[in-house]
Amino acid sequence: MPESTAAIEYAQDHQAEILADLKDLLSIPSISTLPEHKEDITRAAEWIADKMRRLGFKNVALMPTARHPVVYGEWLQAGPDAPTLLLYGHYDVQPVDPLDEWDSDPFKPELREGNLFARGASDMKGQLIAHLKAIEALQQTSGLKVNFKFMIEGEEEIGSPSLEGFIQANKELLQADLCLNSDSGILAEDQPAITVGLRGLTYFELRLHGQRTDLHSGTFGGVVDNPALVMARLLAGMKDEHGHILLPGFYDDVRELTPHDRKMLPDLSDEWWKEKAGAKALFGEAGYSTTERARSRPTFDVNGILSGFTGEGSKTVLPARAMAKFSMRLVPDQTPANIKQSLLKYLEQHIPETMTWELLEHSHANPAMIDTSSTAVQTAARAFEETWGKPAIYDRLGGTVPVVDMLQHVLDVDTLMLGFGLPDDNIHGPNEKQHMATLYRGVETVIRFLNEYRI
Amino acid sequence: MPESTAAIEYAQDHQAEILADLKDLLSIPSISTLPEHKEDITRAAEWIADKMRRLGFKNVALMPTARHPVVYGEWLQAGPDAPTLLLYGHYDVQPVDPLDEWDSDPFKPELREGNLFARGASDMKGQLIAHLKAIEALQQTSGLKVNFKFMIEGEEEIGSPSLEGFIQANKELLQADLCLNSDSGILAEDQPAITVGLRGLTYFELRLHGQRTDLHSGTFGGVVDNPALVMARLLAGMKDEHGHILLPGFYDDVRELTPHDRKMLPDLSDEWWKEKAGAKALFGEAGYSTTERARSRPTFDVNGILSGFTGEGSKTVLPARAMAKFSMRLVPDQTPANIKQSLLKYLEQHIPETMTWELLEHSHANPAMIDTSSTAVQTAARAFEETWGKPAIYDRLGGTVPVVDMLQHVLDVDTLMLGFGLPDDNIHGPNEKQHMATLYRGVETVIRFLNEYRI
Repeated sequence: MPESTAAIEYAQDHQAEILADLKDLLSIPSISTLPEHKEDITRAAEWIADKMRRLGFKNVALMPTARHPVVYGEWLQAGPDAPTLLLYGHYDVQPVDPLDEWDSDPFKPELREGNLFARGASDMKGQLIAHLKAIEALQQTSGLKVNFKFMIEGEEEIGSPSLEGFIQANKELLQADLCLNSDSGILAEDQPAITVGLRGLTYFELRLHGQRTDLHSGTFGGVVDNPALVMARLLAGMKDEHGHILLPGFYDDVRELTPHDRKMLPDLSDEWWKEKAGAKALFGEAGYSTTERARSRPTFDVNGILSGFTGEGSKTVLPARAMAKFSMRLVPDQTPANIKQSLLKYLEQHIPETMTWELLEHSHANPAMIDTSSTAVQTAARAFEETWGKPAIYDRLGGTVPVVDMLQHVLDVDTLMLGFGLPDDNIHGPNEKQHMATLYRGVETVIRFLNEYRI
Repeated sequence: MPESTAAIEYAQDHQAEILADLKDLLSIPSISTLPEHKEDITRAAEWIADKMRRLGFKNVALMPTARHPVVYGEWLQAGPDAPTLLLYGHYDVQPVDPLDEWDSDPFKPELREGNLFARGASDMKGQLIAHLKAIEALQQTSGLKVNFKFMIEGEEEIGSPSLEGFIQANKELLQADLCLNSDSGILAEDQPAITVGLRGLTYFELRLHGQRTDLHSGTFGGVVDNPALVMARLLAGMKDEHGHILLPGFYDDVRELTPHDRKMLPDLSDEWWKEKAGAKALFGEAGYSTTERARSRPTFDVNGILSGFTGEGSKTVLPARAMAKFSMRLVPDQTPANIKQSLLKYLEQHIPETMTWELLEHSHANPAMIDTSSTAVQTAARAFEETWGKPAIYDRLGGTVPVVDMLQHVLDVDTLMLGFGLPDDNIHGPNEKQHMATLYRGVETVIRFLNEYRI
């Protein structure tokens, strides 16, 4: 790809600007789940729109949804014969609690030993900046030879509740030859990877109501049931101490790994996993390696639980209610709809008559697989190998990117995952960071990909 | 008891003052578990000390402990041949959360339909005022014929951590013929009762630590264990869905109810309990009536649980840690020490190697039984019958009053429970209240008791 040289040199000369832009965007606390950050959400969206306008994008707009706007814009100057890429991304970020576990302010980006620490650095403001800079580098040198449409949402971290409707309502506008989705990463700073499989997700909140009010545990202990204990029993009944999920029929639709699938997964040792997770010991279902469990097996996790008195000291209260948030990662061919049926069946059978209850579904997404023989994956593989000097691994992602399945089903558009996070970036946790050298290499990889990709 | 007439008339003439005094004391938010209320604790202690001085008490002092002071004072003018009563009470109160379930400010006492609503109204500032007013009424009329020592602590709602040490250190000072403990109540506004049995308590907090930080449930789901789910499994394993407590040997020391014990318990219907608890359905171990379970069977309750993300919406986090507070009410001849051994054995067997953990013991107290044939109980029975016009029931209390067992063991002083709360006073919960007519009758009952009690 000799014609990429000028653009790559441009990108290398402008690394300080990449860092400055990223710091600027990261200083906006665009937490989508918290209503008090509504204005920050708008500021982050405007920030992206402004960048797009500077790159000559047309029809740039903050398109409203029920909650947070989608930033849309297009650059079609490569002409009707060039491929059109739909860049998907999100400008929203996760909450930052527990705040006291951060070593620096999550919204005052700080560069330490080559890593930029801030909420959203890796997930995924850094990735957005990488694509914006690759486009700029080509525009400023050899020229950008593909068309672009941007669809940057603000609700990814709350499960993209408006996105499917948005895509449905804008089928023609969003039509493209390929979606570039940068909400992903590679395996290690010296090991490029292309994500070719994604787990699905279904996320619930269960609320149990026992008595009218909190009661004194002396007066009423032994008289009434305890919602916190009922919740504990319900959760314990969903997954056993060997890591086996107990919901009825949960594994029925799981496609078992073929020997080929197993061989395609990266070779990550248990020591590697232990260190990345900061765990005393690993844990999971028998019969699968840790990497298999992380990438290609379904999960059940409790994400949050709250009941009764949780302050310092003691209060002899018998709580009136209990709440738990829990979610399941899904693999082909599980569906959120089937899993919800299974969960409802379990709850109906096991919630005692002492409780009233409600179940909220916060989000759901199908699992997705990407065809490794496609032009997109093959072109990306070459771009990675030229940049890193070694071939990319075809990896599966433990996480969920709901839009991949939506675009496939609604627009018939395939996705290429092209992002440059690392497994230890602590996304969603304290001290999230982006490894900057990897991001700079990412910009070069995108430049090479854009220069070579043809339909 | 004809000589009580003048004092009772005095008390009746001064009911407005009883109400005003109580409102004044209730407006001090003396929450002992919250450090930010340290000054309010001191204000409440000073309020009591001031009242005692006005009643001619000598040696009135706020005696310091590791946390909150004990208010001490003595009135010994009845002379060395008269009995000396040790009045035990506490001036501290429970926290008020969930605040949004209160119909009025918990620290702005409000009288509605004969009930005074405020935190601490029934537990137990109302009861303290009743005893203070009975003493005043006798002093102002026929004369007080017993000596008094007051020991009013500020740590009862956090399990009286300093009290045993205080009693040990002040054995001579506190010596008395009988302890009057007003931290109790009667059965209904038209049914007087004398508490002759109390459950013990042991209250723990378990903390589980899994990974170094919160992790992304997509990246690490299936890789590591989930502290929230481990906690759920541990709690679920301590009590089954039939209400049977599963800790090893938990029931070994439980004295089974005799037919006489069963007959002594008040006859309270399940409908009565359901209404008092505001419960959809009652719940408890098989083989015992609801009243038996409430008064004379041991319990296990989760008082609080917290892990992960508990805000609005969703966060796909795999929590690093989980916390639960749980407690057990004990009956004769269970001991907190044996139960703790049983709990530790269970935890050591069941906490997986994926977790580090710590167990905090917030408080513990032995169960206690009171001799119904004593002069004190018999005198109180007559005082109740004269005031209410019907005999008092000998009742057992589901709650715990640790000081009863301490005074018995350390000072060899028996206790008479003499308080005027009602079962639906919502102590420890929102909308705590004191039924004022019952409190006024309580003052009369105390006057009659003090006039007649002799060793």
